[in-house]
Amino acid sequence: MSEMNLLIMNQSELACFLPGRRQREVEELIAPCCVIDAEMMEPEEWAELLARHNPKVIVGGWSLPQLPDGVSWMAPRLEYLCYVPGTVRDKVSCKMIEKGLLVTNWGRSISRTVAECALLLGLSCVRRSGYWNDRMHHHGEWKDDFVTTKSLFDRRVGIHGYGAIAKELIRLLSVFTSKVTVFSDGVPKGVFDYDGVECSDSLNSLFSENDVIFEVEALTPERVGVVDEALLRSIPEGGAFVNVARGDLVESKGLLNVAKEGRLQIGLDVFNEEPLPATHGLRGCMNVMLSPHIAGPTTDRMVDAGDHAIENLKRFCRGEAVVGPITPEVYERLT
Amino acid sequence: MSEMNLLIMNQSELACFLPGRRQREVEELIAPCCVIDAEMMEPEEWAELLARHNPKVIVGGWSLPQLPDGVSWMAPRLEYLCYVPGTVRDKVSCKMIEKGLLVTNWGRSISRTVAECALLLGLSCVRRSGYWNDRMHHHGEWKDDFVTTKSLFDRRVGIHGYGAIAKELIRLLSVFTSKVTVFSDGVPKGVFDYDGVECSDSLNSLFSENDVIFEVEALTPERVGVVDEALLRSIPEGGAFVNVARGDLVESKGLLNVAKEGRLQIGLDVFNEEPLPATHGLRGCMNVMLSPHIAGPTTDRMVDAGDHAIENLKRFCRGEAVVGPITPEVYERLT
Repeated sequence: MSEMNLLIMNQSELACFLPGRRQREVEELIAPCCVIDAEMMEPEEWAELLARHNPKVIVGGWSLPQLPDGVSWMAPRLEYLCYVPGTVRDKVSCKMIEKGLLVTNWGRSISRTVAECALLLGLSCVRRSGYWNDRMHHHGEWKDDFVTTKSLFDRRVGIHGYGAIAKELIRLLSVFTSKVTVFSDGVPKGVFDYDGVECSDSLNSLFSENDVIFEVEALTPERVGVVDEALLRSIPEGGAFVNVARGDLVESKGLLNVAKEGRLQIGLDVFNEEPLPATHGLRGCMNVMLSPHIAGPTTDRMVDAGDHAIENLKRFCRGEAVVGPITPEVYERLT
Repeated sequence: MSEMNLLIMNQSELACFLPGRRQREVEELIAPCCVIDAEMMEPEEWAELLARHNPKVIVGGWSLPQLPDGVSWMAPRLEYLCYVPGTVRDKVSCKMIEKGLLVTNWGRSISRTVAECALLLGLSCVRRSGYWNDRMHHHGEWKDDFVTTKSLFDRRVGIHGYGAIAKELIRLLSVFTSKVTVFSDGVPKGVFDYDGVECSDSLNSLFSENDVIFEVEALTPERVGVVDEALLRSIPEGGAFVNVARGDLVESKGLLNVAKEGRLQIGLDVFNEEPLPATHGLRGCMNVMLSPHIAGPTTDRMVDAGDHAIENLKRFCRGEAVVGPITPEVYERLT
């Protein structure tokens, strides 16, 4: 056995996650190390590779093959899977984590780009830019005397959720003079008080007492469909609803009903069924700005996930706690 | 003669510019005062009204009729036209200003909403949200594996112009970690140094050394077409160009050529011909986000123009200098 750590990425993953000096830095941190493109690897070949190198650390991109059930006897030294992208569910089982495998992913390093997309959708909603872009491209139109546009300046903004994305969004909104209020049912009021953040008593008041609602809450089984038709209808006339979190937080039939009425501007990056079916009723509702789940890290900011992985590899090498370990509890909440 | 000042607005102008206590405040500031809806008034009736009331101050909205050439003998007391919206050219002649009439308009009070629209178009360009909204609504699409999106974080941003809109835009961009560089040929380098703002040596370097270019420069006769095809082509591949200033700053044929190539993302709120002709070649270029000259104050922020007018009326009453007087030089630059 050669006892080599593994960096499992193809060329395009290396270029996007670890550009410049970063690939070298990772190789040095986990030396001795092989860089392998395993994209086309058969399961047998992958198992054989794991057994041959018996790595202590695996750093992987999207092309990383799933860790086989028998990984703990194939590669008994394995301690840490540093998965650079997000979705680890199809790479490693919860059982391996329960048995002690340390796993991280891009964690909070992508929060600012998600918050940026939320801001974009919020601005698009209030200015109705999706509507106007469509009227100008496909209907030869220009504004008339009755055009109504709105701003984020001095608006009442409600944020459902108080994780890393919410905090980044609050930072981005700080340059507007918006009055921001937050609600997240897991968070004690003392936390909001300490952070100097205004909070609502309930999801009902968050929705009914603000003009622009951002959905950035984490999805848990209890929160499936928590944003129902009545809640959406309680947003004041002419308001906006933006979802960059998870489609299942919203009751989909209710969302469609409200979207079709046109009294709200809506911005959606996530859906309860993805890809959104080609004939879905939301398509064609021009008061709804649609994007295909692209709020996550933009191509040019994948490097933030690379830097996050490097920071965690440094911590691991120094015997320190990594940032954002995927515990079995966290694993169960991943989507 | 009754010697009454005039507040010339219709009901919808009063509601949008002077909501709440503001109308009363204006009436008190310029008492004695008549509030008149002159929208349907014939020129004779308007001239007669001016002569009858002989106002010292006229406060007006869009529905204000043009001041007749003979206003100085019809209403010899007239000192100040406080026009609440923007375009005074069709309300008052330059000659009247040269003869000493004090004129103001909404001035810089609208700058933040224009900057907000510039940010929206910039974010739309880098994320390609107009393109995706179109693909999802009209083509039943979802993203594929090769989707490329970009962010404003850590991007090189160039701003052409250094007036009130540029300064507001710099403030809005401050929450992104973008590296902002400015160029404006009228502004001495010392001003940028004093403000702590990075500046380019030339328009050429501004365009070729940044990824996202915002056009917010004032239009002067020398600047017509200053952004030509070569300059647009010098923006690095995959970059973006946003114009919320004036269409005539950009050479229109060159812009269309570059737009059609698709190597840049483009966001346009202004055009060299407005309304944009129904069959214009920019329509249908889905790398171009179009809006119909709506960057100016949003409907909900017209109240900022009202507050700006009230501030100027207070200054006028105290014998102080007003903010943003329309001098003959400023008048000639208005579009």
